[in-house]
Amino acid sequence: MTMQLENDLLLRVANGASVERPPVWLMRQAGRILPQYRALRANFPDFKAFVKNPAAASEATIQPVDELGVDAAIIFSDILVVPEAMGLDYEMIEAKGPKFPTTIEQASDVEQLRSGAEAAASLSYVWEALALTKSNLQGRVPLIGFAGAPWTIFAYMVEGGGSKTFSKARRMLYQQPETSHALLQKITDTTIAYLQGQIKHGADLIQLFDSWAGELTPEQYREFAAPYLAQIAKALPEVPKTVFAKGAWFALEDFAEMPWQVVGLDWNIPPAFARARVGADKALQGNFDPCALYGSAETIRERALEMVRAFGPKHIVNLGHGVYPDTPLEGVRTFVQTIQSVRY
Amino acid sequence: MTMQLENDLLLRVANGASVERPPVWLMRQAGRILPQYRALRANFPDFKAFVKNPAAASEATIQPVDELGVDAAIIFSDILVVPEAMGLDYEMIEAKGPKFPTTIEQASDVEQLRSGAEAAASLSYVWEALALTKSNLQGRVPLIGFAGAPWTIFAYMVEGGGSKTFSKARRMLYQQPETSHALLQKITDTTIAYLQGQIKHGADLIQLFDSWAGELTPEQYREFAAPYLAQIAKALPEVPKTVFAKGAWFALEDFAEMPWQVVGLDWNIPPAFARARVGADKALQGNFDPCALYGSAETIRERALEMVRAFGPKHIVNLGHGVYPDTPLEGVRTFVQTIQSVRY
Repeated sequence: MTMQLENDLLLRVANGASVERPPVWLMRQAGRILPQYRALRANFPDFKAFVKNPAAASEATIQPVDELGVDAAIIFSDILVVPEAMGLDYEMIEAKGPKFPTTIEQASDVEQLRSGAEAAASLSYVWEALALTKSNLQGRVPLIGFAGAPWTIFAYMVEGGGSKTFSKARRMLYQQPETSHALLQKITDTTIAYLQGQIKHGADLIQLFDSWAGELTPEQYREFAAPYLAQIAKALPEVPKTVFAKGAWFALEDFAEMPWQVVGLDWNIPPAFARARVGADKALQGNFDPCALYGSAETIRERALEMVRAFGPKHIVNLGHGVYPDTPLEGVRTFVQTIQSVRY
Repeated sequence: MTMQLENDLLLRVANGASVERPPVWLMRQAGRILPQYRALRANFPDFKAFVKNPAAASEATIQPVDELGVDAAIIFSDILVVPEAMGLDYEMIEAKGPKFPTTIEQASDVEQLRSGAEAAASLSYVWEALALTKSNLQGRVPLIGFAGAPWTIFAYMVEGGGSKTFSKARRMLYQQPETSHALLQKITDTTIAYLQGQIKHGADLIQLFDSWAGELTPEQYREFAAPYLAQIAKALPEVPKTVFAKGAWFALEDFAEMPWQVVGLDWNIPPAFARARVGADKALQGNFDPCALYGSAETIRERALEMVRAFGPKHIVNLGHGVYPDTPLEGVRTFVQTIQSVRY
């Protein structure tokens, strides 16, 4: 499949091949920064109806490839489709974020959840969106599939939504460690089946988002997060895989020992610090400060080139977090064009 | 003053003397975990009226010494009294946090702010509270004074309240670096005058809270945060000082070169990692996960003793963040008693 791509920079870097310049894409590139996205979104009564429509999801996925010329497409979806597939419904409240009317509190709640292939089957709309996108992309760029990491999904299912501290979710790790592990395993089983389906339907690379990794102590990360990430990485040998654990600078050495080809970095982590910890072989992804895109064209260019120099090769350019919705499109364009003018 | 204290463990560790056991106190110990605090708070129409009443602030400060037997008192106040003194008023909205009706957007806004001794003079109610507390404590334990670090105060003044990303505040660093430095300098001048007054009125040790340190890139921290912290540390030679920069694991080496006697750590940072970076001389403070206090007495005891072993001497026991308001008092008591039964 890689052979048929016109632009396979992303996959070459992920697979350890040498390239003439770093590939560039942006987390949340399929989203509110694009006027086309906002127009498309307006056709749906709510975010979930949009996500569940394969034609619309596919259109949103391809918009940034058309508009910004990025080197990869990432399927438009949400990490919270997994808890929903497991039987825990959520609402997406405009400008506030997700809310789960029911949360997981005890072992019996975990027992009632669906998991594995049975749960993943209800996510066929995402698989359809991938197949449609793969076909519509006509090999222009690779297509990235994704899911939330088990700890991050756990955090939402127990906390019931976003939180400053995720203290309910973290409390469960102390008060009910066995129940916590049972829930994490069910999430993991579902995620593996879901991602296997994504690969079957056209994903060229898979990225796991561990958005709340930084809330855990290093010991907890080693007990409740890393082992499940390792299970997922091992279960998907067909494609290269990226782990992005925001705030988990302390876990880079754990990732070094797992079969991830790419390690994503937030903007706190200096490139040399990461390289020393993940070893010489893996690619690093990131870690431009999304706020720098509010700066002048000159600021953006200077800092983008600085970043590329600091990382050296085996680098996929991205932000250190999702692009902020009110980022000026011109700033994003300057960023992408600057990176695409680089030659190693 | 140190000589007259019955329990001077905290100051001995901060000053590099050896002690028989680590001192222990908790960030936010004067607060909602205590039923006495909630009763006292009910006497005031709002949080700010409470903060501005020296007798009440002093009572809240001493409550945890009486109830929990902690080894230090920290003056009950709020870091946002500084922007208010500079002319930027805030409201504290119950269960939501602070809100600034007016924010700093441009150079002319900065020019209009009061600063230095002139601004600090309006904070005499905090100084009174310190003097009263010092007298009422009768030398039982040391009294800690505090302020927010300049970057954290800047973040609130520009953002207008709490935020998931502080993207408005961080954007200003890119778009208006000179205005940003002007504002940071005014905050620094005010903070120094305010803390000199705190020391004059009885503070035995000063702690700076850089709650949003982790939002910056290492380069930004070096440009916009660390230099102002260094100014403050150098301006207050009379007492030992603690810097607590949450999320700023990447800045520990910068702190090593400043005259801080104590470096506070959040729960992400392994003790050996911190010790290697701050050097052998300084004391480390922290870094128990506040969520562990929801665990069983056995869990709390085991983990507390593990932490004490991992840090070794030159350690002030505390949490890695403020204690959560709904933490069971029994858990806190178990924690404090466990630490106080340690003998090196």
